Amino acid sequence: MVSGDLVISQAEHKIRIEKIRNQLKRSRCAALYLTNPTRILYTTGFSHISTERPLALVVAQDGTIFMMGPRLEEDHVKQDSSLIEEFFSYPDYPGTTHPIRHFVKVLTQKRLANSKIATDSDNGAAGGWGYRGPSLRELLRQSKMVDGRDLVDNLRWVKSENEIHLLKESARWAEKAHDLLMENIVAGGHDALIGMRASCEALTRMMKKLGARYRQLKWGLSPVVVGCRGQVGPGSAVPHAVFSKRKIRRGDVLVTEAGVEVGGYTSELERTVVVGKAGSREKKYFEVMLRAQDAALGSFKAGAPCFQVDAAARNAVESAGFAGAVRHHVGHGIGIDDHEPPWLDPGEKTMMKTGMVFSCEPGLYIPGLAGFRHSDTIEVTKDGMELITKYPRSLEELTV
Amino acid sequence: MVSGDLVISQAEHKIRIEKIRNQLKRSRCAALYLTNPTRILYTTGFSHISTERPLALVVAQDGTIFMMGPRLEEDHVKQDSSLIEEFFSYPDYPGTTHPIRHFVKVLTQKRLANSKIATDSDNGAAGGWGYRGPSLRELLRQSKMVDGRDLVDNLRWVKSENEIHLLKESARWAEKAHDLLMENIVAGGHDALIGMRASCEALTRMMKKLGARYRQLKWGLSPVVVGCRGQVGPGSAVPHAVFSKRKIRRGDVLVTEAGVEVGGYTSELERTVVVGKAGSREKKYFEVMLRAQDAALGSFKAGAPCFQVDAAARNAVESAGFAGAVRHHVGHGIGIDDHEPPWLDPGEKTMMKTGMVFSCEPGLYIPGLAGFRHSDTIEVTKDGMELITKYPRSLEELTV
Repeated sequence: MVSGDLVISQAEHKIRIEKIRNQLKRSRCAALYLTNPTRILYTTGFSHISTERPLALVVAQDGTIFMMGPRLEEDHVKQDSSLIEEFFSYPDYPGTTHPIRHFVKVLTQKRLANSKIATDSDNGAAGGWGYRGPSLRELLRQSKMVDGRDLVDNLRWVKSENEIHLLKESARWAEKAHDLLMENIVAGGHDALIGMRASCEALTRMMKKLGARYRQLKWGLSPVVVGCRGQVGPGSAVPHAVFSKRKIRRGDVLVTEAGVEVGGYTSELERTVVVGKAGSREKKYFEVMLRAQDAALGSFKAGAPCFQVDAAARNAVESAGFAGAVRHHVGHGIGIDDHEPPWLDPGEKTMMKTGMVFSCEPGLYIPGLAGFRHSDTIEVTKDGMELITKYPRSLEELTV
Repeated sequence: MVSGDLVISQAEHKIRIEKIRNQLKRSRCAALYLTNPTRILYTTGFSHISTERPLALVVAQDGTIFMMGPRLEEDHVKQDSSLIEEFFSYPDYPGTTHPIRHFVKVLTQKRLANSKIATDSDNGAAGGWGYRGPSLRELLRQSKMVDGRDLVDNLRWVKSENEIHLLKESARWAEKAHDLLMENIVAGGHDALIGMRASCEALTRMMKKLGARYRQLKWGLSPVVVGCRGQVGPGSAVPHAVFSKRKIRRGDVLVTEAGVEVGGYTSELERTVVVGKAGSREKKYFEVMLRAQDAALGSFKAGAPCFQVDAAARNAVESAGFAGAVRHHVGHGIGIDDHEPPWLDPGEKTMMKTGMVFSCEPGLYIPGLAGFRHSDTIEVTKDGMELITKYPRSLEELTV
């Protein structure tokens, strides 16, 4: 059931929590103790800025849901989440009493101190930004703490109808943002500024159109991010470049990216763009990259193993004699996190299922020259796949 | 020695590495094994996007420095870091052989497999985005792994002349960005759009002025971030709001923030801004907040304990009868990470030292009405403190 709202409904969060409770029952755990902000968002819809201050969501097998965290999140939780029934606050971190000792008190009061507890944290805290603290495990010696990451993460592999809806809405705005990027790309400009300008323009249009239906859940300057991230000319041969050391020149190959967060979900759209006119080498690499992506796109299918998609792209590149240009596998699962399992990797034997969502992004990288990579987001279907991102792929259409 | 470049010099990185090596000698560790991207950046100047793919920097006591990581970072490291002498790559994650098993091979080859190793990671990986893997500790049973986080983090508490220089340059641009934000704030606008527009304009000016001297080191759409982050009207009463549910209205109190990354360092500048005309309640809270910040600013001093600064602000708020409006301690260390130890907290007994840098940001929060908080970045001096952020603080100057 797809609602008009651009967030996951409370009803769907309740289904997720029910699934977690069933797993708690099966594994005889009294509760799930979560500290990772993505898992907390997935479970409850509550989004927060994870810092050095410990914060934990507890989902008990009996259905009780409470949170422990710093006082500065108390009003936030009360306003934003009706699923989180209670909030137990401590003044601040590190405090005269360490927050984890406050948590032990609450867990004891909740009769969880002698229980088997599933958790995604070794020491009881997400542990960002210089956090230090005693181990919850050691303070709760009467309890048994077991790895509970998969109680949430396994639910995330196959996307619901609602999640696909949000990813499609994300893709729709990413496509528009990419159009704006293309219009702004010019030799002599710096990609960081061009990206900012296009992101600003795309955000303006999206918020005008969606109005109060739109709500950003993830912390960041802008939920719309479009640009090149330093992948300019020879810099595009570094897949995880951060910033370009020079301006865009005529003849440059750029690798772009466009991502728009909608309800916590972000699809992935990337394109190889040529400024001016592609040379013969660039044309060749572009063509092989396209062939590799075609091969990969043709290999998705529910019931087939993930490594098969990677192999298809890899074979296409190797057949062309460019095996040495490969720097990474062909893609990854995608959802609330930018990268999620399963992976489209030689080592991934997981069978694809209907409703799994992946990036498909084979790349060729020629040091000193350029990188060549398109990335599309796809949904696995019974017989193949369906593109979530729909955007031109040919060299002609991607030359500015 | 302050260079014209807006990054930490190679010479300073070498000093840092020398300090790490001396600590390794003292603690009889053969090497330091780092996975945290901030610590790697601090140690070498190399900046990367930390993902599910394991990556580790190893600084050996004998002076050898090498990195192990995914193939997609190999060219990046070679281009960006001459301090990292060797890069040992694995094809990708999860791979047919798990990356951590590749790392074990390299460590064995480097004769580190039977040694005492300091590390910032329990299992050998930073562990983002659905990472799973075997524990390095368990695979290296002949070695002894000890907590090595402080070998780097302790160096970060007191800032060097160069670090202060970068923080001041950061503040200079944050001040200009905040001016642009103030010019853009208007009733009827959404703070997310206003912030994006001001950030875009400020980035344009900064890059025009600094040209190729400027290089963004941290991954993100923009190194200039100015806006309200949803702290609009009653939303400003939630210190860690993410996004505003409504547009700005006349009479709203806003809490702003301006941060600009320069060479990896970001100062903190935040202001309480009033749209139109402040009511009598708003005036009162604003005044008490200012008094609290004045008290805190007057309490910094090398040799005094950190909790003293928090107590000064707290006393000012309590004297005014507003103890219930406090939601957090008065500030935190700041540098490459947005928040760093030590903390200006009742539980922090650390003595302040010359060259420590802190945010100073007492806040008052009135649910349903607004929040009131200025944040400034200061440097501790022998006799007090020096403001790194220099920006108007009065209600008159902050009314738009």
